Amino acid sequence: MARNLLGIRQLSTDEIGELIKTAAEYKARIEANKPVPEIKNKVIGMLFFENSTRTRMSFEQAAHYLKLKTANFVASGSSMSKGETLKDTVLTLRYERLSGLVMRHRQSGAPTLAARFFGGPVLNAGDGRHEHPTQALGDGLTIIERKGQIEGLKVAIVGDVEHSRVARSDAWLLSKCGAEVRLVGPRTLIPQNTSLLPGTVFHELSAGLADVDVIICLRLQRERMEEGSLSSLNEYAKLYQVNRETLRYAKPDVLIMHPGPINRGIEVDDTAADGESSAITAQVENGIFVRMAALHWVFAGEHQA
Amino acid sequence: MARNLLGIRQLSTDEIGELIKTAAEYKARIEANKPVPEIKNKVIGMLFFENSTRTRMSFEQAAHYLKLKTANFVASGSSMSKGETLKDTVLTLRYERLSGLVMRHRQSGAPTLAARFFGGPVLNAGDGRHEHPTQALGDGLTIIERKGQIEGLKVAIVGDVEHSRVARSDAWLLSKCGAEVRLVGPRTLIPQNTSLLPGTVFHELSAGLADVDVIICLRLQRERMEEGSLSSLNEYAKLYQVNRETLRYAKPDVLIMHPGPINRGIEVDDTAADGESSAITAQVENGIFVRMAALHWVFAGEHQA
Amino acid sequence: MARNLLGIRQLSTDEIGELIKTAAEYKARIEANKPVPEIKNKVIGMLFFENSTRTRMSFEQAAHYLKLKTANFVASGSSMSKGETLKDTVLTLRYERLSGLVMRHRQSGAPTLAARFFGGPVLNAGDGRHEHPTQALGDGLTIIERKGQIEGLKVAIVGDVEHSRVARSDAWLLSKCGAEVRLVGPRTLIPQNTSLLPGTVFHELSAGLADVDVIICLRLQRERMEEGSLSSLNEYAKLYQVNRETLRYAKPDVLIMHPGPINRGIEVDDTAADGESSAITAQVENGIFVRMAALHWVFAGEHQA
Repeated sequence: MARNLLGIRQLSTDEIGELIKTAAEYKARIEANKPVPEIKNKVIGMLFFENSTRTRMSFEQAAHYLKLKTANFVASGSSMSKGETLKDTVLTLRYERLSGLVMRHRQSGAPTLAARFFGGPVLNAGDGRHEHPTQALGDGLTIIERKGQIEGLKVAIVGDVEHSRVARSDAWLLSKCGAEVRLVGPRTLIPQNTSLLPGTVFHELSAGLADVDVIICLRLQRERMEEGSLSSLNEYAKLYQVNRETLRYAKPDVLIMHPGPINRGIEVDDTAADGESSAITAQVENGIFVRMAALHWVFAGEHQA
Repeated sequence: MARNLLGIRQLSTDEIGELIKTAAEYKARIEANKPVPEIKNKVIGMLFFENSTRTRMSFEQAAHYLKLKTANFVASGSSMSKGETLKDTVLTLRYERLSGLVMRHRQSGAPTLAARFFGGPVLNAGDGRHEHPTQALGDGLTIIERKGQIEGLKVAIVGDVEHSRVARSDAWLLSKCGAEVRLVGPRTLIPQNTSLLPGTVFHELSAGLADVDVIICLRLQRERMEEGSLSSLNEYAKLYQVNRETLRYAKPDVLIMHPGPINRGIEVDDTAADGESSAITAQVENGIFVRMAALHWVFAGEHQA
Repeated sequence: MARNLLGIRQLSTDEIGELIKTAAEYKARIEANKPVPEIKNKVIGMLFFENSTRTRMSFEQAAHYLKLKTANFVASGSSMSKGETLKDTVLTLRYERLSGLVMRHRQSGAPTLAARFFGGPVLNAGDGRHEHPTQALGDGLTIIERKGQIEGLKVAIVGDVEHSRVARSDAWLLSKCGAEVRLVGPRTLIPQNTSLLPGTVFHELSAGLADVDVIICLRLQRERMEEGSLSSLNEYAKLYQVNRETLRYAKPDVLIMHPGPINRGIEVDDTAADGESSAITAQVENGIFVRMAALHWVFAGEHQA
């Protein structure tokens, strides 16, 4: 049985801790120009059915450091656009002798389905509104670097929680690791059934940010939102923007995070994005190291089977 | 003079046998984790003017095992879309010091034209309705693995023969190797001038499949067919689908093949595609090994000149 | 401080000479199958916001010979198409641990802006109407190979100077190296303020080509020209085409160059493009060697800081 990384929800707190700790070790080794354990003679398929720059390139860099070869699957104009089923595409890639898959798909659950047919490790690089586990692992590493630990922290996830796989993966990871999670945003952007997600809901930014250690700003996914869910972007910004003013609600040493790409002037202002409290560039960099750990983890699972 | 692989039609039976035998040797070595002969310090250009997932990735995997570097040429938005002639594009790639080309093009004969200007090996990865030689070589290897030999077999190629380069390359390979080839399909999908293609024409599926050892199902290329050539997909499926029922016409140990991507429920049903008689995934895998053999074969030709 | 290659205009004559000399050395070594100095353990990002076949592949080949890894950034559907600023895209790539950037962009000056944020070497692979420095360096090497030196030569740059970054980079390089530069074309295609560009303007082809040693034909960039700037392509060809007839104005041993892709029958005829006087394929090949030199030059700059 292959080991997959499909979501944070299925991981134990120990597994999360192990992955983050391994990532931190790889980071230290790479920054000291020391060798890291390699994954040789394998080829991993990069299946991005949705476009991605940062996540795809982050996996490419992780593979580069591991000497793991990548093969890019171009989704537009591929067999799938000729009517092939996901099952047949994935079976083809298996018999093309790919060793594993990194997969992004607009449908929640598509990587889980792919893993069933593929028979080798599948890593979810973001599926619909479901999960984006490597993003959450990188966020976890970043918080630990800056705050020492996750346990006991108050973390506000602010914005379009409803459409955000990052929000879901972060909420699971943070609550499993002992943080107090808050979901902050307008009623239209917070899931109706919040019993499915760990966290307390706040509709007022001032209350949601009160005394928090970490703010995770979400991208306002304009391209995903149904019409009318917000009267206007400006109104959203007025009520929920994390900026010089609203940061005062939080602790003075609050950490500001964002998965990117940023809509400057909408969910954050320049003070929040670029100031000393911002850990946004650290999140980008740490994404590489957690993906290295994730790749090792799924392939190690293969041999333990 | 460079050696090219432009079509099966130009190959001798001995050359076909040599390519398939070499592919089988590489397969055995790779499955035993033994080294294969490498093609070092060369870069092969991948020129896919039509989209392709399986063939491009199969060549990429072949190159990976041979330690042969690939360079991807993105056709959309390239110089050719700015009005450059094929001649000038190919000359540019030659002086960009590419060692060889793998080329797919919607125009029959384009790789032959490219080979004239390029001056190094050109491998045809599918051109119009003309040929797809590496697909046929992989099909040949698959048949030999499962049936011991090609000579003396009865093989039905079923479906849209008119628009299929796979049908042409398979028909040439199978007849050169001593099989009895049957072309089975409605009048609208069988070439008018069948004297140009080896094989006997059948318009009734029951007669075409009678007593055959191998069925090669073709993809119904909906995107290529002129309107009106079929009253409906459903009518095609009713008369020509290879399925649990119609398989009874063939030998009990018949082998079912398909170049993919499959239209499930049109040219095949799940029984035919997924049953024990199906060799479809073996075709995918063997594609890699015959492409390794083909790459070695064209580059070896260079040094013998 | 990183060293960038943003334009020829900022380079000293000595720097230009050093880059071309290094390129010539690499060429000699590669043609003799001797090793060249490598750039190991670095990954350079290829950011092509405009499509490019020849320049991108030339940089890929240069990187291949240097054992420098490349990472391709797909601009369409990237974060930037989701509204991300160039600053944030470039910062992300920096924290994705890319070692340098090769960048093409439709906006003049975009690579200069990127260099400010990126913090590592940036090489301009063509920006708007501004510069295309590696093209000019390859043209310089080609002229030196065929004419022995640049100093004292008469060089006509013919055609759409207004929209051409190649014309600008070539004019700077040639004048810095001591050539007499002529800008030849209709009033509509020559910049209004020619004080910004070294060279003497000619509107008559016969006068412009009189006694020249080198003709650099420019591509008529049909996709860039505003409507009405030429009454017709045919009229342009009639007045400014470099062909068997008009070549008589130049010296008998004139060298004909073109950055490609060529519009055969418009700015050049087959005699000019394919005859013995043509250095067009040499320009393509030399592009690889000057890009190798440029990559070494920018990374060497890193360590000298």
